[in-house]
Amino acid sequence: MIEVSLRAAVRPTESPEKVAGALEALFPGIEVDAEGGFISGRGGAASLAAFHRLLREQRILDTARSVMLQGVVADAVQFRLNKQAATVGRINFPPEEEPLGSIHVEIRGGPSLIDWLAPRTVDGKPIEEIELEDGDHV
Amino acid sequence: MIEVSLRAAVRPTESPEKVAGALEALFPGIEVDAEGGFISGRGGAASLAAFHRLLREQRILDTARSVMLQGVVADAVQFRLNKQAATVGRINFPPEEEPLGSIHVEIRGGPSLIDWLAPRTVDGKPIEEIELEDGDHV
Repeated sequence: MIEVSLRAAVRPTESPEKVAGALEALFPGIEVDAEGGFISGRGGAASLAAFHRLLREQRILDTARSVMLQGVVADAVQFRLNKQAATVGRINFPPEEEPLGSIHVEIRGGPSLIDWLAPRTVDGKPIEEIELEDGDHV
Repeated sequence: MIEVSLRAAVRPTESPEKVAGALEALFPGIEVDAEGGFISGRGGAASLAAFHRLLREQRILDTARSVMLQGVVADAVQFRLNKQAATVGRINFPPEEEPLGSIHVEIRGGPSLIDWLAPRTVDGKPIEEIELEDGDHV
């Protein structure tokens, strides 16, 4: 079972609606909620479909795989996304927490999660595209 | 004659109204305008009254004087203010342009402008408080 959790700070000059829109631009179908200066998002495997496609369209599979492998914590993978780039559907992995606050992503799932999202490539092209394992689905 | 010009970027997740509010929190009475991804502000000597007071209340005269003396360009003084801190009426001089964009301030005025805003101090207390010269007033 896949569980996607997102969290992004809303700075004083920011619009909570626009921050929520940034989350929804990369993870359509995510359920967003405002809570004390943060926008959070929750969803299942379906909310990863667009992100899976965008990683390929934007040709950043190698970067994504590297970032995700560095972010493995127990049965989850954690990484950051740039909130401003997200508003226009662009995936950008900032090297560190940004002053405006990044989007914090945690995805819990089976062992094939990273191989499904960001497989190994040759010259940037996936060696093999796998399906999510049954156990990975919601 | 004093001319105050402000300019602050509005990032994709930001609210133009909240950015304008940040300008107005430090410079009440400033006339704000939105133009292509920026909020600008224009005002005269009266729009500096609150800023003059806040520099004293927040005990940052020495820092302010140093920043302003470094920012003298011809008959103007230019410096940056942190946009997030401004929303709550707090003056903070960021060392460089911030990722969210800072508030850019330019004040044109007579030679006594900096001595009026941020006089020399001893132990943080002004040696002398001057009035703006007649020629400095709007």
